Amino acid sequence: MSRELDETHDVSRQSWVASAKSHPVFPLQNLPFGVFSTGADDPRGGVAIGDEIFDLKRAIEAGLFAGPALEAAKAAAAPTLNGFMGLRKGLRAALRKRLFALLAEGEDSVEAHAFEATLLHRAASCTMHVPATIGSFTDFFAGIHHAYNGGVRNKRNPPLLPNYKYVPVAYHSRASSIHASGTPVRRPNGQRKRADESAPTFGPSRNLDFELELGVWIGPGNAPGEPIGISRAGEHVVGLCMLNDWSARDIQAWEYQPLGPFLSKNFGTTISPWIVTMEALAPFRRAQPPRPEGDPTPLPYLWDEADQESGAFDIGLEALIRTKTMREKGMPAHRLSASNVKHLYWTISQMVAHHTCGGCNLQPGDIFGSGTLSAPDRSGWGSFSELSEDGRTLVELASGETRTFLQDGDDLILRARAEREGYAAIGFGDCTGRIVPAVEIG
Amino acid sequence: MSRELDETHDVSRQSWVASAKSHPVFPLQNLPFGVFSTGADDPRGGVAIGDEIFDLKRAIEAGLFAGPALEAAKAAAAPTLNGFMGLRKGLRAALRKRLFALLAEGEDSVEAHAFEATLLHRAASCTMHVPATIGSFTDFFAGIHHAYNGGVRNKRNPPLLPNYKYVPVAYHSRASSIHASGTPVRRPNGQRKRADESAPTFGPSRNLDFELELGVWIGPGNAPGEPIGISRAGEHVVGLCMLNDWSARDIQAWEYQPLGPFLSKNFGTTISPWIVTMEALAPFRRAQPPRPEGDPTPLPYLWDEADQESGAFDIGLEALIRTKTMREKGMPAHRLSASNVKHLYWTISQMVAHHTCGGCNLQPGDIFGSGTLSAPDRSGWGSFSELSEDGRTLVELASGETRTFLQDGDDLILRARAEREGYAAIGFGDCTGRIVPAVEIG
Repeated sequence: MSRELDETHDVSRQSWVASAKSHPVFPLQNLPFGVFSTGADDPRGGVAIGDEIFDLKRAIEAGLFAGPALEAAKAAAAPTLNGFMGLRKGLRAALRKRLFALLAEGEDSVEAHAFEATLLHRAASCTMHVPATIGSFTDFFAGIHHAYNGGVRNKRNPPLLPNYKYVPVAYHSRASSIHASGTPVRRPNGQRKRADESAPTFGPSRNLDFELELGVWIGPGNAPGEPIGISRAGEHVVGLCMLNDWSARDIQAWEYQPLGPFLSKNFGTTISPWIVTMEALAPFRRAQPPRPEGDPTPLPYLWDEADQESGAFDIGLEALIRTKTMREKGMPAHRLSASNVKHLYWTISQMVAHHTCGGCNLQPGDIFGSGTLSAPDRSGWGSFSELSEDGRTLVELASGETRTFLQDGDDLILRARAEREGYAAIGFGDCTGRIVPAVEIG
Repeated sequence: MSRELDETHDVSRQSWVASAKSHPVFPLQNLPFGVFSTGADDPRGGVAIGDEIFDLKRAIEAGLFAGPALEAAKAAAAPTLNGFMGLRKGLRAALRKRLFALLAEGEDSVEAHAFEATLLHRAASCTMHVPATIGSFTDFFAGIHHAYNGGVRNKRNPPLLPNYKYVPVAYHSRASSIHASGTPVRRPNGQRKRADESAPTFGPSRNLDFELELGVWIGPGNAPGEPIGISRAGEHVVGLCMLNDWSARDIQAWEYQPLGPFLSKNFGTTISPWIVTMEALAPFRRAQPPRPEGDPTPLPYLWDEADQESGAFDIGLEALIRTKTMREKGMPAHRLSASNVKHLYWTISQMVAHHTCGGCNLQPGDIFGSGTLSAPDRSGWGSFSELSEDGRTLVELASGETRTFLQDGDDLILRARAEREGYAAIGFGDCTGRIVPAVEIG
């Protein structure tokens, strides 16, 4: 682990960008990549620093990069970051180091500072975009407490299916309907059938839910038929984001057998638009906790000592709701859930090794969802299906309102924050969507 | 239906391209679009005519197109046909009409004929490519006899799940691993567990299967949140191909609960590389057969009178196997299955309407699989899982060999052919893959 820590993690350094000083989300030590537009220009790549976005295209024009960092900066300045994600890890890291030097107080930053007015945009005035053309979206099921809770609700004994502790279970989801934070989410129409109904009806989902997930951006990838061994898997992971896998539970219950969820998930997925790099997250790595007594050892293709030692992450997660009433009353969002990435049963490298073990090819710009990352206890359950027990229990909000599932007008916000003594804390930025009413059936 | 028939379906017309005269697959009346390369040039769009490929780029350079046909020809000459698929139906049809005029014997063809040497390439000397950047691959389950057979083998009573006759069941599959006919298919490694084993092992799939499916190329598509009503669905279907959804049954059985097939399918999918257009297929439309007594009427969003009248197709399908022994002995391929597209329980327009009813956006270059298109009787079962009853029965081949599933070295070939009295028969071209041994586990 320590081999991944370098000067870009030095907590004593500060940025000359005033808003970045001890910024709770985007301090100097974060430097996530994204795609933004200002209204005046077409979308292009940038880097979050405090409340600003550092404009890579203009920085290149100002001559601030050379060598490997220039090559990577050109890719990261593009309207989609697929090319950047396809670069080998060393090139991506070289750009991070150069960005750190340019944005930190100190000798190297004098050049950048001189161009401050043209290089920085107020983030609040910009629009963020999905940062890549997403070739494929794979959603895992690696949050074991979410899987367990579902089994309990379905009265399975034992609650987890027999394959769960052997297979990093996943399914292919829909890439075209992934949207950046802030995009409204339209309640889907679909077929749903309650237990007391003899036939399904078509109409707006009655049980619209969120899922608190981590998103994983995939890097170079592999050729078809050439698996990525687990010890090399880390080279193919570029960074993380938050991912809300909106789910229509009533549609899901009726449609999902035997081939899995389809319309219940593919109407929309929201991601936080910044790619928080694995380099920025290096201080928050931790050992994968030992499996509970009695759990099987992972099969050899899923086992790597180094991955076990540092392949997990301590990153705090939150899901919050802000209803129309709360907005009107000026109330803050209500926290539904506080969880942590450490609750993943499988590491990200295990996901990559599993996904490719049969020869499936990953490509730069692919994205994984982790599966709903619930904590073991109710305070960290990451979906309404868990919090309301499929609608049987009312969830009380600070406004006095109650919910079993999402209502039209609700904002659902996901956040992530990594903290560790001796390091600058970093965040991911919001992953927010507001529910808008279903299309009227003509 | 008749409104879709025009001079391009006139069986009395012949092409001046000698090999196209009464060609069994690519006569003048077919004119499918694809992407080819000659070895000397980069991939680009072309049209199959007899044993030749008509080079659209050179035809444009020769000045053979004008107006709407020129606009469509430019899109169809590109290295990927996403732009062509995104054009409205009228533009695509205008190009077909102009191509028919250029390639038919008659006055209009004089121009093209003059450039014959530069416009035509021997197809046997060219390489065919996947004709689009496939954004998403959705696999349906609309072959009711395949679904029924699976239920019987799993001892379900009744064999079909309760949702089958209400929901055009589908799942998202993997776009990155779709390959053009002729690409070898590597046997996947994966986790598999037999009933008599206490834990899974990792290794080459023992039950590697094919699936006889129709592929559907999607056209303009819809904006997120804006469903395509069933009466407009046909505007978004560009053409058809054959699709072999290779399946590792042992991996599938162990992994698929609760989220559906994943590694058992995503190691590779083979398609026939020519897009046989809906315009070329117009003569082979037929009424969707009435549902059997007792089956529910489709919900209103899946019901359209015109679709019921002409939304089905009479297209013959075959699956053949040619083993290494057969090749060495010079024996022809052995037919495993003869089926027909008419066995689809849901029409293509119903698939489009269902896929988008919740707001999921389709994009040009998306592809659907129909699901395995088995006939009701054994002679038309479209997978080894059906033919060998999951390995319990030996399938005897003309060579004296037997199979339960595919062996390394086997070629599996899918073909389609549409015939109707008074019209030129057309084919789709081969959809072939040879099984090569699994990657050795290190």
